[in-house]
Amino acid sequence: MNRTEDRPLTVATADPPVTAVDEHAHAWSPATARARFRDGLAGPTAGVAAGHTQVNLISVPADWAYDMLLFCQRNPKPCPVLDVTDAGSWTTVLANGADLRTDLPRYRVWRDGELVDEPTDVRAHWRGDLVSFLIGCSFTFESALAGAGVPIRHVEQGRNVPMYVTSRQCRPAGRLHGPMVVSMRPVPPQHVAAALRETGLLPAVHGGPVHCGDPSALGITDLGRPDFGDPVVPEPDDIPMFWACGVTPQAAVMASRPPFAITHAPGQMFLTDARDEQYRIVA
Amino acid sequence: MNRTEDRPLTVATADPPVTAVDEHAHAWSPATARARFRDGLAGPTAGVAAGHTQVNLISVPADWAYDMLLFCQRNPKPCPVLDVTDAGSWTTVLANGADLRTDLPRYRVWRDGELVDEPTDVRAHWRGDLVSFLIGCSFTFESALAGAGVPIRHVEQGRNVPMYVTSRQCRPAGRLHGPMVVSMRPVPPQHVAAALRETGLLPAVHGGPVHCGDPSALGITDLGRPDFGDPVVPEPDDIPMFWACGVTPQAAVMASRPPFAITHAPGQMFLTDARDEQYRIVA
Repeated sequence: MNRTEDRPLTVATADPPVTAVDEHAHAWSPATARARFRDGLAGPTAGVAAGHTQVNLISVPADWAYDMLLFCQRNPKPCPVLDVTDAGSWTTVLANGADLRTDLPRYRVWRDGELVDEPTDVRAHWRGDLVSFLIGCSFTFESALAGAGVPIRHVEQGRNVPMYVTSRQCRPAGRLHGPMVVSMRPVPPQHVAAALRETGLLPAVHGGPVHCGDPSALGITDLGRPDFGDPVVPEPDDIPMFWACGVTPQAAVMASRPPFAITHAPGQMFLTDARDEQYRIVA
Repeated sequence: MNRTEDRPLTVATADPPVTAVDEHAHAWSPATARARFRDGLAGPTAGVAAGHTQVNLISVPADWAYDMLLFCQRNPKPCPVLDVTDAGSWTTVLANGADLRTDLPRYRVWRDGELVDEPTDVRAHWRGDLVSFLIGCSFTFESALAGAGVPIRHVEQGRNVPMYVTSRQCRPAGRLHGPMVVSMRPVPPQHVAAALRETGLLPAVHGGPVHCGDPSALGITDLGRPDFGDPVVPEPDDIPMFWACGVTPQAAVMASRPPFAITHAPGQMFLTDARDEQYRIVA
């Protein structure tokens, strides 16, 4: 992998449960899911409150907010912004009554680009100058994929989606730079066209894939060793499809080292009240 | 029209030519179009360098850039951002060798929300702290509409597209607020579905319409008196279709009064090297 940094961009992580957070979680309302996570439940959110939009979180000091918003504008496939809060606010128009400091399953707290904590509540870390970015998540398009008959291997296998740091650099913005991160789903050949079409119609949640087929084209040397999430076992003939991933801002934090940031833990997303259909292009 | 301001949001304008800037302009390359405009040619750009993406321009002092970028993020239908320059730069990744200070047909210069000049070159007004926003333009989807057989009345009639200030307020961002501006095209009933589909697939250039049918639903009292551009005569049975318009940031300038701004003159857009197809959702 071509990296300009001399340290790895991945970090040791708290050991997440690889099974769904609750066998009934797919039927929860988003408000119920947020309440459970507020009460301390943690784990990957794929399939939770099915049909409701999940988002990546990154909160940075107001002094870094313009660089982050510009980074997102210049890299819309990995960083499609669905909401930006006013400085210090922990509410969002995307989820009625939600508290961004408590309602995610698990967070990551970063100082100078280093992971310093992985709590399930960040009230103790909160600062009055934090601006929060809510960024589209590929979990959103999994209901569209499933609806079109495309098998989702990591859901079948009860694992978090595998994510990889690529050799593609994002377009820099101010003090922010870093590589693009992708999520990968192995797709049977007869379902590739449907996967392209369904995800292409959802540009607010990364849209169509950035690559299909050869992992080495993205600088990925071993699909069995993802940088985030869990390895997934493909079926024979499955084609690996790669979508730009909302963990990309975390890679930018690791590469660019802002003094402080709070993010979600990869795969453990914020549940909004929005419905996936709202972000689907009508055509 | 419900406006919170006690002064009109429209302004007297230089009288633009209502015919195409040149009978051969549709076949120009974007570089040729920019060169002609740099040499002083001015006029509406609908149909110029056909198939190439045209964009709205708004340049604001760096101190206002975060508010403007956030305003665009919060109002993506009127303000889909295609590029943002670094402060002071007059180049863009969207057009090789272009100079944003000279290559538009006509500009508007604003001080404290008031129009103070409409030159064809803004080098004398340029400041080293200006950040320029290039925002998608509905002219881009007119080639898709024409390709689908949808008649474009204002092009048939050799006029600039009519634009209206609506009663819908944009979501504010920092110091910026203002009403949404829309462009209007009268569409025969049998072509409405195609117009919806074709524009829906182009979210980077405003996407599908915000309203079809009743102008009063948008607070528009007289389609014959647009706030920008020219009135267009509909055919009997034509249905007025309204798309969010990139003049919206100019309405925000008039309502919010930043100390300084430079914009394009409505309908006289910047020609990029990008092709309209690049912004079409593949589905």
